[in-house]
Amino acid sequence: MKGPRPRNVRIIVEYDGTAYFGWQVQAGRKTVQGEIERAVEEITGRRTTIFGSGRTDAGVHAAGQVANFKTASRIPARKWPLALNAHLPEDITVVSAEDVAPEFHAQFNAKEKTYRYTILNRDTPSALRRARVHLIRVPLDVERMREGASHLVGTHDFRAFGSEMAKKEKTVRTIRAATVARDGDEIRFDFTGDGFLYNQVRAMVGTLIEVGLGKRPAAWVRGVLAGGDRTKAGANVPAKGLCLVEVRY
Amino acid sequence: MKGPRPRNVRIIVEYDGTAYFGWQVQAGRKTVQGEIERAVEEITGRRTTIFGSGRTDAGVHAAGQVANFKTASRIPARKWPLALNAHLPEDITVVSAEDVAPEFHAQFNAKEKTYRYTILNRDTPSALRRARVHLIRVPLDVERMREGASHLVGTHDFRAFGSEMAKKEKTVRTIRAATVARDGDEIRFDFTGDGFLYNQVRAMVGTLIEVGLGKRPAAWVRGVLAGGDRTKAGANVPAKGLCLVEVRY
Repeated sequence: MKGPRPRNVRIIVEYDGTAYFGWQVQAGRKTVQGEIERAVEEITGRRTTIFGSGRTDAGVHAAGQVANFKTASRIPARKWPLALNAHLPEDITVVSAEDVAPEFHAQFNAKEKTYRYTILNRDTPSALRRARVHLIRVPLDVERMREGASHLVGTHDFRAFGSEMAKKEKTVRTIRAATVARDGDEIRFDFTGDGFLYNQVRAMVGTLIEVGLGKRPAAWVRGVLAGGDRTKAGANVPAKGLCLVEVRY
Repeated sequence: MKGPRPRNVRIIVEYDGTAYFGWQVQAGRKTVQGEIERAVEEITGRRTTIFGSGRTDAGVHAAGQVANFKTASRIPARKWPLALNAHLPEDITVVSAEDVAPEFHAQFNAKEKTYRYTILNRDTPSALRRARVHLIRVPLDVERMREGASHLVGTHDFRAFGSEMAKKEKTVRTIRAATVARDGDEIRFDFTGDGFLYNQVRAMVGTLIEVGLGKRPAAWVRGVLAGGDRTKAGANVPAKGLCLVEVRY
């Protein structure tokens, strides 16, 4: 006996990571993937694995995380956002869904990702933006950080900015764009690349902040990168300022 | 025996109104004014009344509410934000403070206020912006709403947009600017005027939405205003999309 041919549904997911132990399912912990798997099971009656484009850490947000799942359900793709959002908490929303080829895999087929890190650069915290910006009270020099960021663009071994790497893990990545821009009291760092090591964006921003504070020259970033020693880079900035903006295929 | 001459401190306050029963102190309820009065008392040891530029409703936010209070404390004005923020919850932040003349009163001296209402105009809710935007799934026509809003500019009797008015309450106000603009998937309504009736902004936006949906022509707004009948205007939009942006003196 053969059931209907399973479909492969790709969804774009927005989430406020504040209340979650990150994307990936972990026993006994509230995760974004876990919430979506529960929602799909409530709708279809079947346990279903959701494949994300990659993990995001505890507290990290997403405006455009991409995931896919196989299902025998006949719910048309355009109705999946409404169905899923009815079963998801307010801090996770599915913004779109489409049918994709059976072989599509959100992680393995991802070509490029864009992350944004947002710093609030003023004297006082912001009540309205408290969940998604990291406060730095000392004025930062955007021009210097922009120059520092330019040294990160290209294909490099980024082990100086990676955390908890396995010994044989490949640490070469390509960053296609790294921009730093001020908008009012916010400073936004946008990184687009073919992939990022664990904590890489947070370590790169922490390193650029040393430059923005005037503690280090912009060219120091190039030295940190070339040296390949994690202990020489800046500290990781907190998760809450980080957002996965877009994944391209 | 005479104490030191009390100082008059003006503060600018930002808050996420989600968790509060509005600005004004109410017995047994969590309010923004109440939280700030508690913080001042914790710092100075004295019960102190905080005078706001005006009330905001339950769920309404502020980026630039203004308030003042009298105090015998010798804490310099520039240190008040840090001191108060240490005693305030994360969803209320004092962004600046200055000494002002003894006769200054945040409510009675306010010359002009700007409110912003934000609509999210797309198919699905937003996890990241859920606390501060009101979702409308049907596409709205910004040009039509802009034309409708133009009829509200000027000095008019706004009783058609007021709620719970006392019989003799003066309902004439002046709106100096009313703009409607799209930014990505958000539509922002900005109103600047010498003052607003209770619920006026939410009723005006509700009325403009009827126009944006194509249910009414833009000129209908002028008729509603002239008619002075609250039952003829659009419904109040929800509080969470509203933010007090600025108060000028």
